[in-house]
Amino acid sequence: MNLDSLYSELTLKSNAKLALVVLDGLGDIATREQNYMTPLEASFTPNLDALTQDGAQGRMTPVAPGISPGSGPGHLALFGYDPLEFQVGRGVIEALGLGLELKAGDVAARANFCSLDAKGIVTDRRAGRIETEVCEELCGRLVKKVKRIGDTDVIIKAGKGHRFVVVFRGKGLEGPLTDADPHREGAPIPKAEPIDKKSAKANKAAKLVAEFYKAALPVIAARKPANGFLMRGIAHQPAIPNFQERYGLKAACIAVYPMYKGLAQLVGMTKLEGSQTIQAQFERYLAEYDRFDYFFIHYKYTDMHGEDGNFAAKKNAIEEFDAALPILLQKRPEVLVITGDHSTPCAIKGHSWHPQPVLLVSPCSGSDKLDRFTETGANLGSLGVFEAKYLIRLMQANAKMFDKFGA
Amino acid sequence: MNLDSLYSELTLKSNAKLALVVLDGLGDIATREQNYMTPLEASFTPNLDALTQDGAQGRMTPVAPGISPGSGPGHLALFGYDPLEFQVGRGVIEALGLGLELKAGDVAARANFCSLDAKGIVTDRRAGRIETEVCEELCGRLVKKVKRIGDTDVIIKAGKGHRFVVVFRGKGLEGPLTDADPHREGAPIPKAEPIDKKSAKANKAAKLVAEFYKAALPVIAARKPANGFLMRGIAHQPAIPNFQERYGLKAACIAVYPMYKGLAQLVGMTKLEGSQTIQAQFERYLAEYDRFDYFFIHYKYTDMHGEDGNFAAKKNAIEEFDAALPILLQKRPEVLVITGDHSTPCAIKGHSWHPQPVLLVSPCSGSDKLDRFTETGANLGSLGVFEAKYLIRLMQANAKMFDKFGA
Repeated sequence: MNLDSLYSELTLKSNAKLALVVLDGLGDIATREQNYMTPLEASFTPNLDALTQDGAQGRMTPVAPGISPGSGPGHLALFGYDPLEFQVGRGVIEALGLGLELKAGDVAARANFCSLDAKGIVTDRRAGRIETEVCEELCGRLVKKVKRIGDTDVIIKAGKGHRFVVVFRGKGLEGPLTDADPHREGAPIPKAEPIDKKSAKANKAAKLVAEFYKAALPVIAARKPANGFLMRGIAHQPAIPNFQERYGLKAACIAVYPMYKGLAQLVGMTKLEGSQTIQAQFERYLAEYDRFDYFFIHYKYTDMHGEDGNFAAKKNAIEEFDAALPILLQKRPEVLVITGDHSTPCAIKGHSWHPQPVLLVSPCSGSDKLDRFTETGANLGSLGVFEAKYLIRLMQANAKMFDKFGA
Repeated sequence: MNLDSLYSELTLKSNAKLALVVLDGLGDIATREQNYMTPLEASFTPNLDALTQDGAQGRMTPVAPGISPGSGPGHLALFGYDPLEFQVGRGVIEALGLGLELKAGDVAARANFCSLDAKGIVTDRRAGRIETEVCEELCGRLVKKVKRIGDTDVIIKAGKGHRFVVVFRGKGLEGPLTDADPHREGAPIPKAEPIDKKSAKANKAAKLVAEFYKAALPVIAARKPANGFLMRGIAHQPAIPNFQERYGLKAACIAVYPMYKGLAQLVGMTKLEGSQTIQAQFERYLAEYDRFDYFFIHYKYTDMHGEDGNFAAKKNAIEEFDAALPILLQKRPEVLVITGDHSTPCAIKGHSWHPQPVLLVSPCSGSDKLDRFTETGANLGSLGVFEAKYLIRLMQANAKMFDKFGA
């Protein structure tokens, strides 16, 4: 029997409030250089410690052993969607990250300006790393000149440095396509081809990309070093089962960064905009407490400082988070989870595969009798090591949202 | 490769004795109200403690994360049958619970008396909760009047209060059917319909249920408030691979309550009847030691007191169990497992999803160097958290019943 169907069958109505608080890239590793302490272990976290008293801990494998996820699969798993089954293309993630609201069927691509010689050979894949202002100006020109191809709208938005995204919004489109990028200098830009050659929709999308090149390249032809562009990760927004229908939970997202709002929106959560600090995010949670059943609250800075390898800054980010926690606890949800979407160890300066620590507090969680919430403590917890995609099922169980299975 | 086939291929003959001792609903959670102790932690268990010295511990997910199993799936998993693959209908479980011996192909239903008005509308789904004696008398009448429908035998047995079960024993029958129960007052009794409309066997079963109503309703028509009845969970006894063939182990069940005997019988174990206390059950084990390879010994009271939320009584039940343990240990099996079929936390007063603690003692188990067998200790054990359906495979491995896989 399909497990998702079983969960659906067993789902009961509930008045419980559930909150998932994600400290992005929270997990870390203990190394000699840092006195065998992780940032979480080195932090002063009196509020987390107090919560831990009545909570259960464990560690979550974000996708599968050894796999370091991007933000897309990391969050989809936390939302209960198998990240191997529901794959979101890089173009879609990039578009979400720039705050574009995608619709089902949109095809999105990551793009960046590059330098071409007279024969169309790529001489610099990053166009000499042009400034963001130049990128914005060039994108502005493209927006004016290439609004529509056939029956399809073309949406272009500048990113940082030489990067931008292109979204095709029309009928009967589908990805993924191969990259219009030789992935090295000294070669021409290859044509984007459908990966499934038999898909009429993907063939239409490939044709669109070719026509987009034909229309767009002349617009920037004189703008060396940015006289060309590459497109990668060309994919459509996948159909993802709606969060509320799947779990019976009306969900809200309180995030600062566009990508996380976008990922939440992908599964049908309501975006609550405007909060710029964790304090403001928690205040917003209090204000919206009655309107939703499930809150996804995203905190970015743990990941950001992990990526920089900045141990002290990651520790500070955790302490700032901890200091804000009492705001959230003014209206304590029945089920509160504090975790990361993956680990971002300072020693690695990037996302990693190390299972992230998770703290789950509810009247049914039981206490693991641990003094603190840390990676080392989480190793001892009653939740064990489990796949992140089951987190929401544990949250639902703790909210008493599941009927007994069998007699 | 199919894992069950691999286990079968690798299975060796063995003279080892294996014993699975189930303290029903053993697992619990530590809460502030009980000083952060579980009943197992609060108990005085010198005999379990001594066993723990040379044993391995871990925790078992009964079915899947967040799922609270009934006794059926809980025990099937302990017997090594995937509870998602082998589902036993509620009617079958209820019949087993009343001590009826089902045969493969029998279709069983939970039933209960209800009140009907002159138009056949259900006015009380529980017939004013009639006394057990009244129920027994009414069932006696039905037994006399409705013995057979066509080529099918009808078996009726009274339960507690307004409840009874009906079993159809004939050829070419199959469930599941929809309930002959409006699940609310103010509506007539709906017809039971096959869930798989294309199944000839299920259609035959549905027709039988309709004819049973036609024959049985007149018998009790004058017996208001019990002048009608509802039928639910109408299902057939599924075909479950025989335990001895599957594992190469001749198995015996020493249980007090009918349901557990019934579940053991479902997989082909021999029921050893007559023991009414845990002491007597262990004595019986000693007496039958030479006749079987595998013993399933079931102790009910931990679950019963957990369901009542009675912490002190659950603790006492554990201590009584511990005091009886030396009887079992007079003939120590090569592989001894002490665990639950699921958790029944006092704070939840019902079955839960929390992985149950498991203690496995054998000459090959190794020692986890834990002083006691508790939930918190089990979190630290070498067995980790694993799915309950693998327990029997670990028991077989500890009995040296598996050849090496590959060279």
